[in-house]
Amino acid sequence: MTDTLFELNGGRYQRPIKPLVVVCIDGGDPAYLEASLEAGVIPNTARFMKDGFYTVVDGTVPSFTCPNNMSIITGSQPEVHGISGNFYLDPATREPVVMTGPELLRSRTVLAEYARCGLKIVSITSKDKLRQQLQKGLDLSQGHVSFSAQYADRCTLAENGIENVLDYVGMPQPDMYSPELSLFVLEAGIRLLQDRRPDVLYLSLTDFVQHKYAPREAEALDFYARLDDAFGRLAELGAVVGLTADHGMNDKAKEDGSPNVIFLQDVLDQTLGKGQTKVICPITDPFVAHHGSLGGFVRVYCNQGADAEAVIRIARSLSGVESVWDRDSAARVFQLPADREGDVVVVSEAGTCIGAAEAEHDLEGLKGHRLRTHGGVSEARVPFIVSEPLNDAYWIRAAGGRLRSHHIFEFTANGTVR
Amino acid sequence: MTDTLFELNGGRYQRPIKPLVVVCIDGGDPAYLEASLEAGVIPNTARFMKDGFYTVVDGTVPSFTCPNNMSIITGSQPEVHGISGNFYLDPATREPVVMTGPELLRSRTVLAEYARCGLKIVSITSKDKLRQQLQKGLDLSQGHVSFSAQYADRCTLAENGIENVLDYVGMPQPDMYSPELSLFVLEAGIRLLQDRRPDVLYLSLTDFVQHKYAPREAEALDFYARLDDAFGRLAELGAVVGLTADHGMNDKAKEDGSPNVIFLQDVLDQTLGKGQTKVICPITDPFVAHHGSLGGFVRVYCNQGADAEAVIRIARSLSGVESVWDRDSAARVFQLPADREGDVVVVSEAGTCIGAAEAEHDLEGLKGHRLRTHGGVSEARVPFIVSEPLNDAYWIRAAGGRLRSHHIFEFTANGTVR
Repeated sequence: MTDTLFELNGGRYQRPIKPLVVVCIDGGDPAYLEASLEAGVIPNTARFMKDGFYTVVDGTVPSFTCPNNMSIITGSQPEVHGISGNFYLDPATREPVVMTGPELLRSRTVLAEYARCGLKIVSITSKDKLRQQLQKGLDLSQGHVSFSAQYADRCTLAENGIENVLDYVGMPQPDMYSPELSLFVLEAGIRLLQDRRPDVLYLSLTDFVQHKYAPREAEALDFYARLDDAFGRLAELGAVVGLTADHGMNDKAKEDGSPNVIFLQDVLDQTLGKGQTKVICPITDPFVAHHGSLGGFVRVYCNQGADAEAVIRIARSLSGVESVWDRDSAARVFQLPADREGDVVVVSEAGTCIGAAEAEHDLEGLKGHRLRTHGGVSEARVPFIVSEPLNDAYWIRAAGGRLRSHHIFEFTANGTVR
Repeated sequence: MTDTLFELNGGRYQRPIKPLVVVCIDGGDPAYLEASLEAGVIPNTARFMKDGFYTVVDGTVPSFTCPNNMSIITGSQPEVHGISGNFYLDPATREPVVMTGPELLRSRTVLAEYARCGLKIVSITSKDKLRQQLQKGLDLSQGHVSFSAQYADRCTLAENGIENVLDYVGMPQPDMYSPELSLFVLEAGIRLLQDRRPDVLYLSLTDFVQHKYAPREAEALDFYARLDDAFGRLAELGAVVGLTADHGMNDKAKEDGSPNVIFLQDVLDQTLGKGQTKVICPITDPFVAHHGSLGGFVRVYCNQGADAEAVIRIARSLSGVESVWDRDSAARVFQLPADREGDVVVVSEAGTCIGAAEAEHDLEGLKGHRLRTHGGVSEARVPFIVSEPLNDAYWIRAAGGRLRSHHIFEFTANGTVR
């Protein structure tokens, strides 16, 4: 065992013995692994799971992309790192604010800490919304690389530590709604690993495929086969690979194929009166064609005069609602920052999602496929895979049953030091 | 793969290829495994975990003994099998009723189904309270055995399918408050396995040790070493062994060592008035010295005129409460039978427990040790161990992440058929 390089949020991080790659498979519900294993299309991942380490763990609730990516790269929960959704309501202006600003991230990151200790970092994300938080504390003039596949065609040395990325990776600019947006991230990581031999890589994919296709559909199996091929090449290049997901994914459509939605804002407007409450869907980002901003977790803010207790009672009575929480309870149970929490939190069951007002949701992009989405407790179980066996100390810690997805860096790095 | 012998509650059960032993380690929190692995005192269990199959899964909430034992032997949740606590309030008489009567069990059991298919069954429990439900549907004149260590000294052929058990096992009658009450169960199972070669054994232990000692205390490590020795002998005798727990265990004492209790009945009496509500602690059984009937999950019944909404509001405001549910929500989220549910369910956080009125709890037996108990969501994570590797079909199913403790019979039996 080597010495501790740094401590962060209760985790102790050692110097990795080989290049360390952590991949966040966006929307990588364990059901996709099950289907892909059954179909025999992910031999490398199967080998990691059998010969390395595999379990299923809890991620962060709300089971959205931003909070979970921040949990993973800080080794903590939102009560520490501050990012509890893609959106929150600014208490001063009462306006929704996107939560992707690095100034909102309240913790240092594992990536920045490794960098501080002299290690070379690569961080690549599919969607640019995550990039600035992922690279927080990284000085990109020091040989680190951070960019998004979304803006691969506009990388600059100053901004990203790399340029001419399309040529470098040998792929065209991927479309925002394509499997290639994720595959580009992996191919870029592989190329950089070959070429520059960075010490630590964080590769964050996107869930376009999982939103659109169920685990046993050909498109999903094909996507997983392509991911698996890339994972195999990362290991072949001598990296130790940790795989987890930001969240799972559930079918939330009715039998007839239409989305199974509670339009909570409409319900609250009808019962309590218009303008009394504001429902925020923290899944929202600018690219919503595959989920229409419908998720399994919403926040309700009460305007002056509106009664949180009334909202709780109404929400609890709605079929398809799993749980309803006041601010403090939600913050406590899900380890969220209370100062960024709504007055009421509403979580839906696996088969149902929650929206604001029907008129605010553009469901055009959902036509032709069933709504699959995430956000609730039902989508918080994610895989936790390390490509090599854990050493005794970490294997025993895992046996204690308190492993979470935010331990993936620590376990992949330290757990494979012998 | 052999054919399906029977189907029960969605599970398909094949003929086990060798004697099948499932052990329910009462209070067997994963933390005890972690501590015992660290101390190196459970070599057989460590081998099962490394060479066989191991993961951590959710059990049934409330995380009490009766509901979880019934989940395990029926392969279902309480909404199916009906047993949602050790106690419930009879809606007609408004009196607490012990829930151990076989007539309250609404499902056939895996044990009875195996028996119907001609297999020989042994069911041994530490405390007699479980015995009648465990043996429901077993005709003890047909060579099956069912008894409790508690009443080992009064077994009869007619009632238990065995007599002179103390002589047969070669141990004295164990004390109700002793590690030997569990060890007797295992020794009896081993003796019967050697002697009569039954096909299926269910061995249900008791959590006296875990209530009293934290995972790293010498008494807990010694107990686990003795359990491990018995597990090793079961495997040596040619059995495939499945290990799970009914629930975990958490320290619920304050810094000064006194129990960290919310006496909810007192709170409700003070706020709503005496006689308005009735708090039921479904952990209650006649042997309470080690936990004083304090657990992490209570039911509140509202008498005529009392308002469940008021109870919910009050309970939610109490420090140490994790979640509060109305009847329908509790039934839905925890898969409980609504007709046996309280008007309100209150679940405590890991470090807190909930009682009824202070005057109703005898905490005398707690003197000299910290309160350790269970019942809530925090104590519902349990180990899931199979002594042999799973075949591909079951290994892949496990990878899907929906494994629960009630799958232990199916996975131990079918999962090791090659």
